[in-house]
Amino acid sequence: MILQHIYDIASVCAAHGIESAIISPGSRSAALTLAFVRHPEIETKIIPDERSAAFIAMGMAQQQNKPVALICTSGSAAYNYAPAIAEAFYQEIPLLILTADRPPEWTNQYDGQTIQQSNIYGKHVLASYDLPVEVNHEDAKWHCNRIVNEAINASIGRKGPVHINVPIREPFYPDSNELVNFPEVRVIKNTPFQGNIHLAQWMSLGKKWQNHTRKAIVLGQMEYSKPLHTALYRFAEKAGIPIIADVISNQHDLPGVISNQDSFLNPQLNTINRELAPTLLITLGKSLISKNLKLYLRNNPPTEHWHISSSEKLNDSLQHLTELIKIDPEIFFGEFVQHVDGKGSFSYLNQWQQVNQVVETAKASFIKMKKFSEFQAFNAVLNVVPNKAKLHFANSMAIRYANIIGAPKNKQVEIFANRGTSGIDGSNSTAVGAALSQKSPVVLFTGDMAFFYDRNAFWHNYNLKNLRVIVFNNHGGGIFRMIDGPKRQPELEEYFETKQKLNAENTAKDFGFEYHCCSNLKDLKDYLEAFFTTSKNAKILEIQTNSERNTEVFAEYKRAILEAFKA
Amino acid sequence: MILQHIYDIASVCAAHGIESAIISPGSRSAALTLAFVRHPEIETKIIPDERSAAFIAMGMAQQQNKPVALICTSGSAAYNYAPAIAEAFYQEIPLLILTADRPPEWTNQYDGQTIQQSNIYGKHVLASYDLPVEVNHEDAKWHCNRIVNEAINASIGRKGPVHINVPIREPFYPDSNELVNFPEVRVIKNTPFQGNIHLAQWMSLGKKWQNHTRKAIVLGQMEYSKPLHTALYRFAEKAGIPIIADVISNQHDLPGVISNQDSFLNPQLNTINRELAPTLLITLGKSLISKNLKLYLRNNPPTEHWHISSSEKLNDSLQHLTELIKIDPEIFFGEFVQHVDGKGSFSYLNQWQQVNQVVETAKASFIKMKKFSEFQAFNAVLNVVPNKAKLHFANSMAIRYANIIGAPKNKQVEIFANRGTSGIDGSNSTAVGAALSQKSPVVLFTGDMAFFYDRNAFWHNYNLKNLRVIVFNNHGGGIFRMIDGPKRQPELEEYFETKQKLNAENTAKDFGFEYHCCSNLKDLKDYLEAFFTTSKNAKILEIQTNSERNTEVFAEYKRAILEAFKA
Repeated sequence: MILQHIYDIASVCAAHGIESAIISPGSRSAALTLAFVRHPEIETKIIPDERSAAFIAMGMAQQQNKPVALICTSGSAAYNYAPAIAEAFYQEIPLLILTADRPPEWTNQYDGQTIQQSNIYGKHVLASYDLPVEVNHEDAKWHCNRIVNEAINASIGRKGPVHINVPIREPFYPDSNELVNFPEVRVIKNTPFQGNIHLAQWMSLGKKWQNHTRKAIVLGQMEYSKPLHTALYRFAEKAGIPIIADVISNQHDLPGVISNQDSFLNPQLNTINRELAPTLLITLGKSLISKNLKLYLRNNPPTEHWHISSSEKLNDSLQHLTELIKIDPEIFFGEFVQHVDGKGSFSYLNQWQQVNQVVETAKASFIKMKKFSEFQAFNAVLNVVPNKAKLHFANSMAIRYANIIGAPKNKQVEIFANRGTSGIDGSNSTAVGAALSQKSPVVLFTGDMAFFYDRNAFWHNYNLKNLRVIVFNNHGGGIFRMIDGPKRQPELEEYFETKQKLNAENTAKDFGFEYHCCSNLKDLKDYLEAFFTTSKNAKILEIQTNSERNTEVFAEYKRAILEAFKA
Repeated sequence: MILQHIYDIASVCAAHGIESAIISPGSRSAALTLAFVRHPEIETKIIPDERSAAFIAMGMAQQQNKPVALICTSGSAAYNYAPAIAEAFYQEIPLLILTADRPPEWTNQYDGQTIQQSNIYGKHVLASYDLPVEVNHEDAKWHCNRIVNEAINASIGRKGPVHINVPIREPFYPDSNELVNFPEVRVIKNTPFQGNIHLAQWMSLGKKWQNHTRKAIVLGQMEYSKPLHTALYRFAEKAGIPIIADVISNQHDLPGVISNQDSFLNPQLNTINRELAPTLLITLGKSLISKNLKLYLRNNPPTEHWHISSSEKLNDSLQHLTELIKIDPEIFFGEFVQHVDGKGSFSYLNQWQQVNQVVETAKASFIKMKKFSEFQAFNAVLNVVPNKAKLHFANSMAIRYANIIGAPKNKQVEIFANRGTSGIDGSNSTAVGAALSQKSPVVLFTGDMAFFYDRNAFWHNYNLKNLRVIVFNNHGGGIFRMIDGPKRQPELEEYFETKQKLNAENTAKDFGFEYHCCSNLKDLKDYLEAFFTTSKNAKILEIQTNSERNTEVFAEYKRAILEAFKA
């Protein structure tokens, strides 16, 4: 078989546990398509728009916690993957990208669907390979096999996207009487090194720990992990220190967790909150959402800041990092708890919990106000999401509302948002990927800009009955009205907020989704129960609000918090 | 003004004659947005989806024959431009890409909307620059100005996209009482060298010319140019040689031009067509569409092949290039006509014209057949397009039908297709760009896959009354049923043809376009006149056909041509 080395890619993938491939249509890529479609251990789906395909694959990989293969034809198809690849790179989600290509002699010859695909994703993949074009010599066969093994190991071990460019000469298709076979292939497994720290170093960290009374843990974006949850809980309980968790850290069910930091770390509350600054800060996870939290920690720097991560990437976004401790956070807290005395400064913990509670109470009474806006609507929906739902939030205002209002507690929900690059380009598709790869309900909270940007997420033939989409439609990028700079410019409406006229109804019709539209709180509350009942296909709930009103209510919320602290 | 160096970019652009900027919403890019919006000599439009924005800008630049500026915020926004940039690179269309960025110290710090933007478009831009971050020193100011001048000169002079990455620190917005000023800026103009050839070289080429009796000119993709048209006409008339023009060469109105090569260069007609092979082949332009023409010229190589181009790129796609003559084709034919005797081999020209005429006659009678299919529908619409229309063709079958059926003659239409990379990703947007930048009617012929892929082309607030879109909806990628390999595979429908269910009606509703659907020839012909009448907004005509039927008819066409030559 001329293309056996292509068919073998699917076998190596399956041997490494890859279960799914997302394919976009193409002829150059036919051998890759057939290899994955015919391989008995891999499930494939076809998605026409490559931009959506890549975000869908990422959403699936996030749920499966293993690479999903992405297959496209040559030419600009490959470039349409790029936004999702950047997101996967920063969110550390494994992906195996297989781009069919023309052989190199055809590059720049004005022949169809040929661009310069080698290393096309630049620094946004962990590794990038070109498969050999001619695979006759035994060494070339060995090379092919090694590349695929190496790429998958990098993607799994270091968590992120890897790219194999696959040049293919005609003929692309087997004859109709020719079978595609999957003989046994060599598999090189990577046993990841489970690092620990030398006892002397633990002791030294323990000593440093004792030098501080004001110690806090801050959690950035993380997937939910039960063992880490347990380790953090035990640690905090013994050490008596505050754990400050943005909503994307997925630790909202941790008892006593601090979650209202975005509200009380407002610079206007400086006289109260400057008492809260830790001298020893421990961070884990990736990005933080709360701008107030980030500014607060930059402006009130700890004397020591340890970042705990099994990756070597240096994340100094709070600008005062003193120690990068390269260890799995679960192991860190599991072990370090032994080196920590039980005499945490509970009064310091209490300070944090008190201000957190002030916001909690003020928020509860604020939310009762009658004015209908995104804030009220967001809260109403969040309160009734199903248990164990996967909650996806688009960027801009959706994820900000979630961080302020907070995840519903004790419902075992998980929170997802594309905070790797914080783009608005792929949130529908990421949620679709989640819905396609597991059975729990997936609830997407999105604004109208992100929703319409990525409508091709739904353009395929796969059932999405476990998907619920809530479109907060204020007919533009409402965030621009909320931030100070643009709202002062005469160009606000046309060039920043970007008024747009679409409603989601026709989109729902196009894809056969149930559709309901609300523009007041009573209608919304009356409908929500029906919205979350099971159905044969996805449902879209469109919540129409007024952008000026939303801005007013958001400002009122901020004032209410200030008032609560004055009282 | 802290951001004066940003505002000055708009001034330099205006001084170089740039008239238009396409902006996507963003905060990091606010200073760029304000600079271009407020500059009195530049017209701006805002397009939310960056993928469409870039193809729209490309469509505008193609009409204006000068760079259009593209402005986006930081992060994955920049990557959404990439497909259009690759297309512009290969189609040689000028574009000035301005991506706002975070300053370099914020890269890889898990802070919002930050990816690695330097050189992000790799080899698909002519040049790539990073603007300095701090512009206090006079040398830094000089550097900024020089970069912008150099980038624009490269884009104009060498025709293609250039990228300036623009890191910007906060504050992004001027105070409300702060004016954005446009003081005079330094402009470095580039006087392009109008090359000619030394007389001795002309003589030498003339001598070589005389050694051949079988000489032909083959035209690849070119924009329409009246002077080149005239030069080609005079040359061909004197030299008496065949000019073989794919539809994208825009020379369909050249008297005696050969346009049916895709039909008669069928390998099954080898006994007839092997007599046609030239010994001296002269080519100009970029890509060829006709696969039969390319294979024919590769398999029947000329002893000499001259490619005439003012660019230095080596295009050897016919595999037997002997001479790259670096000169503007218009100058070449204008001068070379003096070195060519009038004794062209008219019998050789006649051979070509005869076979071309056999196809012309067979096609005319084939088209009368009653079976309704894309072929008939395509022909019916092409016959009645308005004079001076800009005809845009999506990739896959749309442009292939156009090349086989041929452009309508003597209507002064111009033909556009994204044959730089031959992607299906941006054909709506390119046509929208053409409609937005001039007043002639723009008619887009597209299949359903390309149409739905790029619906965001219409998602903005600008009027498109001169746009007509004909969607040939066969509910999938019909081309896969027509080519040999995939049609033999059991995966044909699901994985190659990719059956899709959408109709264009809801899309038309969403954007307030007139919509009409036809599924037989009578309805179509009855409606066409109304379709091309003026209106307040764009119109969509959806032509529903059956994919199996289209494949049958296409095969029947091929058989009819074979029969015509047997007769």
